[in-house]
Amino acid sequence: MSDQTTQRHPNILFILADNLGYGELGVYGGGPLRGAPTPHIDGLAAEGLRLTNMNMEPQCTPSRSSMLTGRHAIRSGTYAVPLGGVPEGLTQWEITLPKLLSDAGYATALYGKWHLGRDDGRLPNDQGFDEWYGIPRTTHETTWLTSPGYAPELVRPQHIMEGRKGEPSRELQVYDMQERRVIDAEITRRTVAFMEERARGHQPFYLFTSLTQPHFPTLPHPRFAGSTGKGDWADMLAEMDHNVGEMLAAIDRLGLRENTIVIFTSDNGAEFIKPWEGWAGPWRGAYFTALEGGLRVPFILRWPGQVPPGLTSDELVHGVDLFTTLATIAGVAIPQDRPIDGVNQCDLFQGTSAKSGRDGLLVWVDNRLQAVKWRNFKAHFYQQDTMMSPPEKLPVPFIIDLYTNPREEEGKRASGWVLEPMLKMVQAFEASLVEHPAIPMGTPDPYEPPRRCP
Amino acid sequence: MSDQTTQRHPNILFILADNLGYGELGVYGGGPLRGAPTPHIDGLAAEGLRLTNMNMEPQCTPSRSSMLTGRHAIRSGTYAVPLGGVPEGLTQWEITLPKLLSDAGYATALYGKWHLGRDDGRLPNDQGFDEWYGIPRTTHETTWLTSPGYAPELVRPQHIMEGRKGEPSRELQVYDMQERRVIDAEITRRTVAFMEERARGHQPFYLFTSLTQPHFPTLPHPRFAGSTGKGDWADMLAEMDHNVGEMLAAIDRLGLRENTIVIFTSDNGAEFIKPWEGWAGPWRGAYFTALEGGLRVPFILRWPGQVPPGLTSDELVHGVDLFTTLATIAGVAIPQDRPIDGVNQCDLFQGTSAKSGRDGLLVWVDNRLQAVKWRNFKAHFYQQDTMMSPPEKLPVPFIIDLYTNPREEEGKRASGWVLEPMLKMVQAFEASLVEHPAIPMGTPDPYEPPRRCP
Repeated sequence: MSDQTTQRHPNILFILADNLGYGELGVYGGGPLRGAPTPHIDGLAAEGLRLTNMNMEPQCTPSRSSMLTGRHAIRSGTYAVPLGGVPEGLTQWEITLPKLLSDAGYATALYGKWHLGRDDGRLPNDQGFDEWYGIPRTTHETTWLTSPGYAPELVRPQHIMEGRKGEPSRELQVYDMQERRVIDAEITRRTVAFMEERARGHQPFYLFTSLTQPHFPTLPHPRFAGSTGKGDWADMLAEMDHNVGEMLAAIDRLGLRENTIVIFTSDNGAEFIKPWEGWAGPWRGAYFTALEGGLRVPFILRWPGQVPPGLTSDELVHGVDLFTTLATIAGVAIPQDRPIDGVNQCDLFQGTSAKSGRDGLLVWVDNRLQAVKWRNFKAHFYQQDTMMSPPEKLPVPFIIDLYTNPREEEGKRASGWVLEPMLKMVQAFEASLVEHPAIPMGTPDPYEPPRRCP
Repeated sequence: MSDQTTQRHPNILFILADNLGYGELGVYGGGPLRGAPTPHIDGLAAEGLRLTNMNMEPQCTPSRSSMLTGRHAIRSGTYAVPLGGVPEGLTQWEITLPKLLSDAGYATALYGKWHLGRDDGRLPNDQGFDEWYGIPRTTHETTWLTSPGYAPELVRPQHIMEGRKGEPSRELQVYDMQERRVIDAEITRRTVAFMEERARGHQPFYLFTSLTQPHFPTLPHPRFAGSTGKGDWADMLAEMDHNVGEMLAAIDRLGLRENTIVIFTSDNGAEFIKPWEGWAGPWRGAYFTALEGGLRVPFILRWPGQVPPGLTSDELVHGVDLFTTLATIAGVAIPQDRPIDGVNQCDLFQGTSAKSGRDGLLVWVDNRLQAVKWRNFKAHFYQQDTMMSPPEKLPVPFIIDLYTNPREEEGKRASGWVLEPMLKMVQAFEASLVEHPAIPMGTPDPYEPPRRCP
């Protein structure tokens, strides 16, 4: 680590699982309790940082959008999974982390799920990635193809695609139930191949490995189906841990360990759709809710020499912070012309501070501000237990001390004074929206913010 | 460990918490998430074995009875917390672990909660302990003394007591809310003093340190009240971890580390009574139910040189196994004249086998067989969500795969074939009750089993 240039430009392997609940991994209390140990991912945690209060926006699209832009998805028109009919995903006006890193000389790639725009102009190779391979949308569409009444001429099936910066992306094959089983193996293969290629040069890389598991339908690779004898879910966990193990082995084999930040996390809380519902561990709720089970995700970060092994923290961190923190680590400037919600968590991640860079965070579900977290307190403004139950505005906020009421159950309310710092955060955010209006969902490119009086 | 005699007679420090849920300790996913890290207990786990599927009978009295006798409490008339009016606790006919160990030359003591008989003849010094100090019953009685309408002449208050083998026990002082706060400190002080005394001699010891925390009312010691700034519960956790730390420090200071088995566990699952309800971590339910949150407890065992550090296991173990396993380790014979439900788990605990000595276990709540666990499956014969809801017999068993339905929620049933091995276990148990009838609750001493035709 004596080479300052090297130190300023570490590689980043960002592994994102899809709907992996807080409780699934061995190191988060799952693993064998789910029928499959996860030794590779647990080992990664032992070598680095593990967060127990990492919060994501609780749906795929907003979570990915917020991590890549450092901005809450309500700002960028990506606050919900798109249902079709209007332009989807991020406008070209947004500045993504891969865009910043690419401009700074990083090689960038995304392999796996995108879900931030289905059409050319909105695909990963339009948003800062040199290349990509994967699915533009999401995995449950694989179940459409065999469902009664479906025909491809009615709704065009999603295709696995690939593309390179400056070229239109191309469709490879239909993403069906069989491809659903094998795509993570291909994502892993490409991840390893990318690192093998990059290890020969001196260009740092940012590689976003966006696994499709365990998002429903949770069907494991044929090589893993039946491997645990504990069912599909356990087989999937074994597969995921194996895939991560392959990536970590490649990093070691290629001599990249010291200068590569490896992150493993999930886009949001636990899967909800039966029979593939996930496990939020001790938390209540699942994705598409403001409950902890929807927000808290596993988060592991290894950076040898920079992040102490075995570090854990229960400090509040949000997905938007990854943008700011990784940009800072890579030495690229944070955009100044727009509100950035992410804060720099370098000190927390490196163990030089025991405190998060933030005191609280706001929780939207869709475009509703459903909750606020501040320190160990939380206020719910809506009652919504599952993604299928209608959100109902509460007459008075439900205020919780998460230390004493971790399952957010009625019957134990915290003191109302905590609303004051919470509402200050809300007011500050709303003020920023007045100055920088939110981009409506469905906004086509080119987007330019409204001109303000100087 | 070269001295074979020493190896055959390790000291045993058995630390039992009262209603400490699965999720409370740092190493079980709690600690900082409850407002207080538990570094001493977590450290103990890192130095030894940690179980994630340790099951207790889900009430104080049956749990303690079953651990001390190796027999399910339904056999010994101790299947429920006594409500008064009849003789309470274990008959003198039962053979407890301290009785066996005492007869084999161990020094034995209990400090803390007993709850296996309130009167002379049924107190710890009548059941194999050389000496004891603590409360004969339980902690919630402290709340009686300040409740409206109460007067000591109506119901005599519980006293803290002490006693020695062969002598009547004597009352020290009323166990009130103030004593409730400080009793664990005194239990800890006596634990350390006992070990200091024993370290001078060559007699091995069995010390049952039966902490009263966190059983409601969960009021921390004045030294810890306010110490975390996170409320009573966090203060209690800090206190408990401190107390265990004091004991472990004494063990090291006295040179007892190598030849002392230290166990830390809880008598049953999480506390339920608000505002002191506990945290079962990922499990549903609390004590007095057959749900996992009532059964699964933290269990940590350190035995340097004999149990590999950092060992974890999700294999099924039951509290009754502690009797058999510890008796085996201490080299004392298991009684042959009565059914013993505990199995020897030495191989599992020492890491020489990855498999439990048992395939399943039966779950009584009160005198109802409410559930059976077999491998990763579970059948509920009753519906009962909390200790306050009436148990209702189900028309067909609710069969669960705990890997895929860890929260035991309706909507996901496992296949019915697993009932067959489960019911074989039930039938075997029922057959043993025909041959060895259960001792009815309230049976006075002397008890002798009915004579059978030879």
